[in-house]
Amino acid sequence: MEKEKLFKKRHSLAHLLAIAVLDKYLDAKLAIGPVIENGFYYDFEFPSSSPTPEDLKDIQKRMKKLVLKKLDFEVKELSESEAKEIFKDQPYKLELIEEIAKKGEKITTYKTGDFIDLCEGPHIKNTSEINTDAFKLQKLAGAYWRGDEKNKMLTRIYGLAFETKEELLEYLKMQEEAKKRDHRKIGKEMDLFVFSELVGSGLPLFTPKGTLLRDLIVQKIQNIQREFGYQKVTIPHITKKDLYETSGHWKKFGDELFRVKGKQDTEFVMKPMNCPHHTQIFAGRPRSYKELPLRYAETTMVYRDEQQGELLGLSRVRSITQDDGHVFCAISQVKEEIKNIIKVIEAFYTSLDMFSDGKFWVSLSVRDKKELEKYLGDEKKWETAESVLEDIVKEEKLPYRKVEGEAAFYGPKLDFMFKDALGREWQLATAQLDFVMPERFKLEYIDKDGKKKTPVMIHRAIAGSLERFLSVIIEHFAGAFPFWLSPVQVKILPIAQAHKKYAREVFEKLKEEGVRVELDDSDESLGKKIRNGKIEKVPYMLVIGDKEKEKNLVMVESRDKGQIGQKSIEEFLEDIQKER
Amino acid sequence: MEKEKLFKKRHSLAHLLAIAVLDKYLDAKLAIGPVIENGFYYDFEFPSSSPTPEDLKDIQKRMKKLVLKKLDFEVKELSESEAKEIFKDQPYKLELIEEIAKKGEKITTYKTGDFIDLCEGPHIKNTSEINTDAFKLQKLAGAYWRGDEKNKMLTRIYGLAFETKEELLEYLKMQEEAKKRDHRKIGKEMDLFVFSELVGSGLPLFTPKGTLLRDLIVQKIQNIQREFGYQKVTIPHITKKDLYETSGHWKKFGDELFRVKGKQDTEFVMKPMNCPHHTQIFAGRPRSYKELPLRYAETTMVYRDEQQGELLGLSRVRSITQDDGHVFCAISQVKEEIKNIIKVIEAFYTSLDMFSDGKFWVSLSVRDKKELEKYLGDEKKWETAESVLEDIVKEEKLPYRKVEGEAAFYGPKLDFMFKDALGREWQLATAQLDFVMPERFKLEYIDKDGKKKTPVMIHRAIAGSLERFLSVIIEHFAGAFPFWLSPVQVKILPIAQAHKKYAREVFEKLKEEGVRVELDDSDESLGKKIRNGKIEKVPYMLVIGDKEKEKNLVMVESRDKGQIGQKSIEEFLEDIQKER
Repeated sequence: MEKEKLFKKRHSLAHLLAIAVLDKYLDAKLAIGPVIENGFYYDFEFPSSSPTPEDLKDIQKRMKKLVLKKLDFEVKELSESEAKEIFKDQPYKLELIEEIAKKGEKITTYKTGDFIDLCEGPHIKNTSEINTDAFKLQKLAGAYWRGDEKNKMLTRIYGLAFETKEELLEYLKMQEEAKKRDHRKIGKEMDLFVFSELVGSGLPLFTPKGTLLRDLIVQKIQNIQREFGYQKVTIPHITKKDLYETSGHWKKFGDELFRVKGKQDTEFVMKPMNCPHHTQIFAGRPRSYKELPLRYAETTMVYRDEQQGELLGLSRVRSITQDDGHVFCAISQVKEEIKNIIKVIEAFYTSLDMFSDGKFWVSLSVRDKKELEKYLGDEKKWETAESVLEDIVKEEKLPYRKVEGEAAFYGPKLDFMFKDALGREWQLATAQLDFVMPERFKLEYIDKDGKKKTPVMIHRAIAGSLERFLSVIIEHFAGAFPFWLSPVQVKILPIAQAHKKYAREVFEKLKEEGVRVELDDSDESLGKKIRNGKIEKVPYMLVIGDKEKEKNLVMVESRDKGQIGQKSIEEFLEDIQKER
Repeated sequence: MEKEKLFKKRHSLAHLLAIAVLDKYLDAKLAIGPVIENGFYYDFEFPSSSPTPEDLKDIQKRMKKLVLKKLDFEVKELSESEAKEIFKDQPYKLELIEEIAKKGEKITTYKTGDFIDLCEGPHIKNTSEINTDAFKLQKLAGAYWRGDEKNKMLTRIYGLAFETKEELLEYLKMQEEAKKRDHRKIGKEMDLFVFSELVGSGLPLFTPKGTLLRDLIVQKIQNIQREFGYQKVTIPHITKKDLYETSGHWKKFGDELFRVKGKQDTEFVMKPMNCPHHTQIFAGRPRSYKELPLRYAETTMVYRDEQQGELLGLSRVRSITQDDGHVFCAISQVKEEIKNIIKVIEAFYTSLDMFSDGKFWVSLSVRDKKELEKYLGDEKKWETAESVLEDIVKEEKLPYRKVEGEAAFYGPKLDFMFKDALGREWQLATAQLDFVMPERFKLEYIDKDGKKKTPVMIHRAIAGSLERFLSVIIEHFAGAFPFWLSPVQVKILPIAQAHKKYAREVFEKLKEEGVRVELDDSDESLGKKIRNGKIEKVPYMLVIGDKEKEKNLVMVESRDKGQIGQKSIEEFLEDIQKER
């Protein structure tokens, strides 16, 4: 109800935007003006002069004046010819009218003051419902008419709108904070990854520190899951398309894959996922029930042809590193295997303090029963699979919601949704049940009774895509990673030349103990050194001056707790022992 | 001199083969019959009936009779028309005659008994020089006339020929041994890798054991080179071709690269090497002389479009994992850096017992001065680079040979050539000096004097391609790897049901100590279990029966030393400590 009210206000603001624009730009042509998350937009064609960001302020002022006029929104149903008469100077509206008429749908308009817009509503009754301090024109952008690049490029004006001024300010503050935490900015400051014009967009190159960060994540997951018997395997990044014809991916996603062509007749595709390759290792020799569950894990890059315009830092890339895993097991082993996967997810996200109450929930992603043709495999197995997953989340007492239509084409999933420091939700870990692919690949094992059986497959990812995971946690922590994940854990800052020798001793000592430590023995001032360390979000800086050198101590500066004071190296090592 | 003598014998045997074939197959047409490594071949067209492998014995018998006839080889120079008259029924010879005549070269024939062959020689004087026990017809194969698949497919008969019977037998024995050691056979027995029809040829999939083997090699190298300051980086497998246009690879190898095509306009190539990508990490931010040398290392797959017919197990694949590394440094640092690389190579190959005297040599691979157009960069820098490398091998007292024409297009190399157990030579490790690519990529650093300088690049690989390296060491060790490299180091074999509990205790104890151990608690006989362990080339098997259980001991069976006797677990752990 509240949501609907806000929807109407946003929708009505779009109309006020159109009025204000037409007022200022007499020959502007109107396209469409829908409601979106946090606000609304309207697309215009400006035949003569176009608005600048500066003009938005004036347009917004005009909108506020319109609000204060307490205008009504009046709905009216028209015939096609009546509508065409009203919009005779508006070519985009005429196109829409013809379309509505062709479909045999009702043509409705909303009138506000003298302005009439083609619109199916709903709207508020009167502009007095709108709080003039709770909306703001945000930005200008280009957009093709109907999103088709063959059409004309229009000008889109975005607006933000909320119920109250406070909500708007809160949103703007969060945007500001998000900007500060932008992983592209922090990634550069911390020297984690770079892009190259020569290599291409969407293809990040990871520096030594970025690679270390990746490795620390992968090692953490490997260490946690070691007790559950996962074994590393290695596959190539290309394959004949035959593999995907068998798996069923070709029919569903064939058009979206990168094709690879060599000299003469060699033709491959780049792998956009690893499961079909992993089935071929299982199929590489006869299997016995004694070998099950067989658990293959691999951190490897897959490639997806994302559109240039959708690429964004590490959030959306073309080379995607998956921390992938596949379990092949008997049906009777499914429950324990998935519970073990959940244990790994819990341990991993606990190490990031992201697994506590309210910080995550589980999407039990099932089929959309209205679109059953989207899924492969038989009904009965799907129902079993969906109910097994539901049993598991209940038994594990996980906070969950059933989300229809989010299943994979081969089976239902448990998708783990995590909230970041700004309250944004991200799907990261996943466990997926699959009765389909093992059958399509004719996988089999000899059971106790000597008969051939088909195994079940479980797909699992803990961090998901490493690139996306990094973009999320860089922004979540604003680069201030937990100690175990910090590329540089301790930085040693001698104040002057005279302290460098002792500083190096401290450096060597910590290095020997396996701490990731750096020594800043440049000739910069202490202030500059500390500022650099802060930009790099180093958890601890150890300042070394006369007093420290004299007494064999270090002055500990903590990133999170501020100045801690003088300690001996042994005391400091003991303090950080817990965090490691 | 000796070599020339053997060449003549082999060449003459090809003629005797032709005589014997024509004797038996009257309508056979002769193509060519050259000398090759270890022997000779002759290509024939058989219009009516073709020889079977069984027929080769008869043909060989006829050749031996011809040898015993003590026939002379007589050379004669002919005019084109004389030659055409003699070979009027031999279309391939006629084609060759026309070609020789067109080039204005001499037409010579060799006559042996009644047989005359078109041939430029040289030959032996008389067949009595040939030892009838020192040659053998080897096999039949198909071959296109002039190697062009548009031409007719001919029948090739291969023959082996040496000076003495002993040499022939030695060669046959080695071939037999090579067959036993075939890495494809051993790889299957040890369950190291598989191929899949659906994925495609030349694209191996590595099982958990094969992946472990790869990881052990990579870790060994990483551990050795840690002290020399190498840092891991991570790059994608594709790039815009712009990267290779800049590096110079496009012009030289552009036709041989895999092209990657997405929807719409996205077009990439798969990387066949990593150096250009690594330059882009260096170029990712401004660099100071203080950061040099910067040493990037990465184990990553590159892709090369090898011809289907040339693919062979892991020896020749399309997905090639390189243990790659690139050093960016000042010219003054080159010598030390390369010497450090040599230290890593020495330590790594010593751990495989492959670095001792006579087991390896270094190819100082320089330009072919007759084909200078094949190389990029200026003359003076090349000369410096070649002489720096020569200084290094001299100072390090490495056994080396200067090999002309083996340099990379961007600089000279030190290629490390290793001899395997069968005496075959393999180029594995390499260190390459490169003044060209840093310039082409405009890499730079700020030197002490505040001026911009161009760094030098060193390319280095220790194992080279992991796939090829594996194929070499699997065959070298016949799968019996050194202890540190064995996927399974110890196998525990309880004799009967009653011994399984204690066997498991031993298993757990060794596992805890970090030994890679397997427990064979199947109900197979001890004999069968031992046979399985031998096939898997496990370094140690610990047999556990009544006596061992009673006294808390294990019966140690060593793969290399045979039965060692009873030991306590502690004693056994101490024994293997050195090998670890």
